[in-house]
Amino acid sequence: MKQPPRLAGRAVFALSAALIAAPAAAAAPAPVTPASVLAAAPDADWTAIDPHDLMVIDLAGGGRVVILLADAFAPAHVGNIRKLAAAHWYDGLAIERVQDNYVVQWGDPDGRKPLPAGIVTPAPAEYDRPAAGLTFPLLPYPDPYAKAVGVSGGFPVGEDEAKAWLTHCYGMVGVGRDYTPDTGTGAELYAVIGTPPRALDRNIAVVGRVLVGMDLLAALPRGTADLGFYSDPKQRLAIVRVRIAADLPAAEQPHLQVLNEASASYRAWVHAKANRQDTFFVRPAGALDVCNAMPPVRGAGRVGM
Amino acid sequence: MKQPPRLAGRAVFALSAALIAAPAAAAAPAPVTPASVLAAAPDADWTAIDPHDLMVIDLAGGGRVVILLADAFAPAHVGNIRKLAAAHWYDGLAIERVQDNYVVQWGDPDGRKPLPAGIVTPAPAEYDRPAAGLTFPLLPYPDPYAKAVGVSGGFPVGEDEAKAWLTHCYGMVGVGRDYTPDTGTGAELYAVIGTPPRALDRNIAVVGRVLVGMDLLAALPRGTADLGFYSDPKQRLAIVRVRIAADLPAAEQPHLQVLNEASASYRAWVHAKANRQDTFFVRPAGALDVCNAMPPVRGAGRVGM
Repeated sequence: MKQPPRLAGRAVFALSAALIAAPAAAAAPAPVTPASVLAAAPDADWTAIDPHDLMVIDLAGGGRVVILLADAFAPAHVGNIRKLAAAHWYDGLAIERVQDNYVVQWGDPDGRKPLPAGIVTPAPAEYDRPAAGLTFPLLPYPDPYAKAVGVSGGFPVGEDEAKAWLTHCYGMVGVGRDYTPDTGTGAELYAVIGTPPRALDRNIAVVGRVLVGMDLLAALPRGTADLGFYSDPKQRLAIVRVRIAADLPAAEQPHLQVLNEASASYRAWVHAKANRQDTFFVRPAGALDVCNAMPPVRGAGRVGM
Repeated sequence: MKQPPRLAGRAVFALSAALIAAPAAAAAPAPVTPASVLAAAPDADWTAIDPHDLMVIDLAGGGRVVILLADAFAPAHVGNIRKLAAAHWYDGLAIERVQDNYVVQWGDPDGRKPLPAGIVTPAPAEYDRPAAGLTFPLLPYPDPYAKAVGVSGGFPVGEDEAKAWLTHCYGMVGVGRDYTPDTGTGAELYAVIGTPPRALDRNIAVVGRVLVGMDLLAALPRGTADLGFYSDPKQRLAIVRVRIAADLPAAEQPHLQVLNEASASYRAWVHAKANRQDTFFVRPAGALDVCNAMPPVRGAGRVGM
């Protein structure tokens, strides 16, 4: 019997938290799915994110973006970002560039705002770091760009020749710089909004991951000037306030948790994503790429994946 | 000397056609870049796309989406789509779902519009096809999901066990279906707007690639109901008209060309993308993934990549 189009339209891609409560068939046990793994994960497998590690961007119109900062990978750049936020330097700046299938970028469009004291231009820039000192699970699947890939501290990571680096996945945040290397500070930042531009890996300092608000950034109108810059300043979206979450009044702080990549739940979640048993799937992939393996985040402003 | 922030903001990621005219240094030859390869590609390396193979979607508000149909991979589903367009069946329907980092979906939100005569539900559905009969260049880099990946007819392709299939990359278009397989027709379609959801490969019929208008689709407000459906019908974006381009008045037809993947220019472009020599890059990746290897398209409504 042909399925009615309404069902075809509504049911397709039931790959979200909506499936957590999917009814089990009377006889067969419910399959293990990414959603069922998350629903069953004990609280101990979720790590509360320290508000000192979150950058909160409040946008004109009421939207909020929350970014987890990556001190372990780019301490000098993240140090700059912390100082810029503490100095309220970003307040009043704007999102100035949205290039489809690439990046959203924000900062000082006119380049006239003096940087506060203490902002350095790290050289050499933090394009990678020693792999030594990081212990993290590697995915058992090949990657086109790195010898191995895995997840560390909630971030996607590439590894090769005793070096480790954050990979450019959807929602990852990096430091804008000039054509020449070692010229970025953190005053200009971008987030990836399309196909992972992995060619940028190890060519730019990556400083964080957007945990809340990608739905806002990725839906902004694309700019029509070169590189997706807005051609008219009126098209820019103003940044009202940027703070480290710990510096916000308690009632305004986000409370987020990330699935601990060292936990059994994370391992089970990766396995379930690589070998989908959900009713929808007829041929599990048997693999997972690093950008689809970023640990889920839950909490105020973000539930499930 | 510290770069002024304005330059840092403006110059970052100069990875577009804007670089075609980058001034060469006085002494050094200009590096070979993806943009320079495209600028130098002879007209013979660009293939004009037959307007019979293009689906044109005109949206409320004046936006246009143009999709290259993949008869070689999903002839029965594409046959349905051609019939639905010829019957003007899609006219007056809507974009009903936008799920961040996943898909935009359009069709008949209420599922009440009868399908015209001749629309079949292909079974078995066209989730893959024999690799025999396709000759196409394979990328010399590993892929997590397929034994080999390459490009055929302008589309990204995976290959394994004598089968070939279209891979879920940003801008690829597939056929919505119910939870059970072999239930899609082409009446409900989706386009990928985020991280390539490669787990869907070989689980859904993929029927095309958006060549024009991804900037519109990907910038739509995200839906807040389950799976990203719009909670209020007023949020939907109406589809004014869907036609095969050849059926439009000549003045309204798009004229597009795709870089022939069998050409020397395509090979040089892939090599330049995998081994970036642009001034910006300090460490070429030495690799390229299939979703970053989709052949560039040029022409009215779309220039360069």
